[in-house]
Amino acid sequence: MEKIFVKPLKRHGSLWIYQNEILSDITHINAGSLVKVFEEKTNKIIGTGYINPQSVIAVRLLSFGDEQINKNFLRERIQKSHKYREDFLGLKESYRLIFSESDFLPGLIVDKYGKCLVIQILTAGMERLKDLIVEILDKLLVPEVIILRNDAQPRVKEGLKVEKMVIKGCVDNLIMTKEDDLKFYFDPLHGQKTGFFLDQRENRLYLKSLISSGEGLDLFCYVGAWSIHLAKRGANITGIDSSEKAIEIAKQNAMLNNVQDKCRFIKADVFDYLRWEAKKGKKYDFIVVDPPAFVKSRQEKKDAIEGYVNLNRMALKLLRKNGILATSSCSQHISETDFLEIIKKTFKASKKTGILLYKGTQSKDHPILLTMPETSYLKCLMLRVF
Amino acid sequence: MEKIFVKPLKRHGSLWIYQNEILSDITHINAGSLVKVFEEKTNKIIGTGYINPQSVIAVRLLSFGDEQINKNFLRERIQKSHKYREDFLGLKESYRLIFSESDFLPGLIVDKYGKCLVIQILTAGMERLKDLIVEILDKLLVPEVIILRNDAQPRVKEGLKVEKMVIKGCVDNLIMTKEDDLKFYFDPLHGQKTGFFLDQRENRLYLKSLISSGEGLDLFCYVGAWSIHLAKRGANITGIDSSEKAIEIAKQNAMLNNVQDKCRFIKADVFDYLRWEAKKGKKYDFIVVDPPAFVKSRQEKKDAIEGYVNLNRMALKLLRKNGILATSSCSQHISETDFLEIIKKTFKASKKTGILLYKGTQSKDHPILLTMPETSYLKCLMLRVF
Repeated sequence: MEKIFVKPLKRHGSLWIYQNEILSDITHINAGSLVKVFEEKTNKIIGTGYINPQSVIAVRLLSFGDEQINKNFLRERIQKSHKYREDFLGLKESYRLIFSESDFLPGLIVDKYGKCLVIQILTAGMERLKDLIVEILDKLLVPEVIILRNDAQPRVKEGLKVEKMVIKGCVDNLIMTKEDDLKFYFDPLHGQKTGFFLDQRENRLYLKSLISSGEGLDLFCYVGAWSIHLAKRGANITGIDSSEKAIEIAKQNAMLNNVQDKCRFIKADVFDYLRWEAKKGKKYDFIVVDPPAFVKSRQEKKDAIEGYVNLNRMALKLLRKNGILATSSCSQHISETDFLEIIKKTFKASKKTGILLYKGTQSKDHPILLTMPETSYLKCLMLRVF
Repeated sequence: MEKIFVKPLKRHGSLWIYQNEILSDITHINAGSLVKVFEEKTNKIIGTGYINPQSVIAVRLLSFGDEQINKNFLRERIQKSHKYREDFLGLKESYRLIFSESDFLPGLIVDKYGKCLVIQILTAGMERLKDLIVEILDKLLVPEVIILRNDAQPRVKEGLKVEKMVIKGCVDNLIMTKEDDLKFYFDPLHGQKTGFFLDQRENRLYLKSLISSGEGLDLFCYVGAWSIHLAKRGANITGIDSSEKAIEIAKQNAMLNNVQDKCRFIKADVFDYLRWEAKKGKKYDFIVVDPPAFVKSRQEKKDAIEGYVNLNRMALKLLRKNGILATSSCSQHISETDFLEIIKKTFKASKKTGILLYKGTQSKDHPILLTMPETSYLKCLMLRVF
């Protein structure tokens, strides 16, 4: 394994080593090779990881120790992640099994949906370990289906192929996942990301504890998870999404859970829909705002902030007094502090105030590593609006 | 009612108007007088409130409108607060009924513990409305006991007497409150603040969902609420507090809930106790750190930060691998961002990392007004430590 020497690192507990922290010449090393990293001054081990000389984040560590990265190592890592979800969190059916850096397996995402595993590999280093990982997962979980969702954009920068494929079993169309007492169909091959947004589970369940009646909107409803949870509790809800496929699945999900009388789903542009409703003077008791990431890079942050303010302002306009706004941002480059400021700005522009009922984040099967703020991305605020 | 003219205000949705924002001469107005506030430039109403010419926060608004502050007004405010707790939050037995600015009644705190009300008045303006408020509360809630805990330090600055008294019924000694399925005795007259820390209720219940076994410490345990909840779930726990009275009540509470075999309470200085345990090489599965406010003013912030780092560092030393740290700060001048930084600093100094399981705040019966960050004070972080 190649040895790399670095400057004294300032960020405690980070798995990332940037290009400009590396003192060794790394240009000759192949992308994805395993490396051991040492502090040059002290010759002390920093950790073991993999390298990509073309990436700004040149090394991603798999361990802060001096380790052999082999099948045993990977099996232990995966077993530990599994134990945390199943034993500590008590999750059994569906959950994110591996969340990249937070599970000390940077570049690897694995979602478990019952007997189906969806794997996403994001880096050249993890790509090299793919076969071992699939083997370990297959043995540990004995899934009927394994899907590779290697169609994420970061792969391009890593020089990897963008592809989707079923590598075990077969997938005809939709698969089913369970959340709380409900069932949801989704499309693991053609749906967004890895198919279903497990990261909002805890936030959805929390909102269920606040809402059991009234009429609401579910903006960017995708396959209807927020809507159906709230409908099951007793609310009437309209879900809006621009994707015809998503809306079709949402309708199926409403029937699957026997709430087709409590919710309807409409294919429309969310902004258009909000404008129509405002024109009609329509008011709602609650509105869920859960848009896709507006910011894909630091550069777009300013535009994204404006986007969030506009969207939430339009939603606020349709809320009754004492109504509830449940608003999320999954943009990595918007911090919780940023998002709170965005919402305050929205309230100021709307000349409203309200109380903050909840500040949520991604569910605990998408752990946030305390020493790597980069592992935190989802913000979900719930407010009672005066 | 006196009219006051102010500069254009920058803080949207704040109930506070500072001395330096006031253009009128207010020196002749008696502390506690009701006033109407107008923007001088536009002659637009800013709101109705009360004044204290000696205070930096010269006016505290009771409303953003032009209102008569009379019995009807106060009754509506109180009924609204009551409805929010009982109908929206579903709280019945014990809760904070009025939380000052967050309930648009600045300077007033009311806690309900079953048939006992504990009232705290913090400002000269609210003191003038006291009799009306007591009358309304008595009629609405028909309590058997009403206690005035007017022994908070801010009263001195407002030129008010510092006193405690029972103004309805009689209190022999302890009274009882319920939380979740448990009962707790506390001393409403001589205990800390208003007697029991209702603000940690949701955080305690959350920790209960994470811990059901193992051995733990409850630092600054007061009357034992964290301990007894966790003991009831199956954990073994030692509570430490420097107050002999608190420890005695905690022991009674353990018996009351039939967990005296699962928890013990020790009168000791928390820092001393942690040092002794470290010397013995003792390790725990979880530690609750819930100290009283370290920062009473902005000036003390630096010392307080050091205090939190030291305390949490000593706690971390005693935690087993995969142990849980549940650490709180109720210091008003430490923001959630500050507290997260403090905990990161602690982990760095301890050469540890971990995952953030929970970022909690004060329970929802102590609402956070979105447009007044000053209404947010409690931070509770739970971490799984590697």
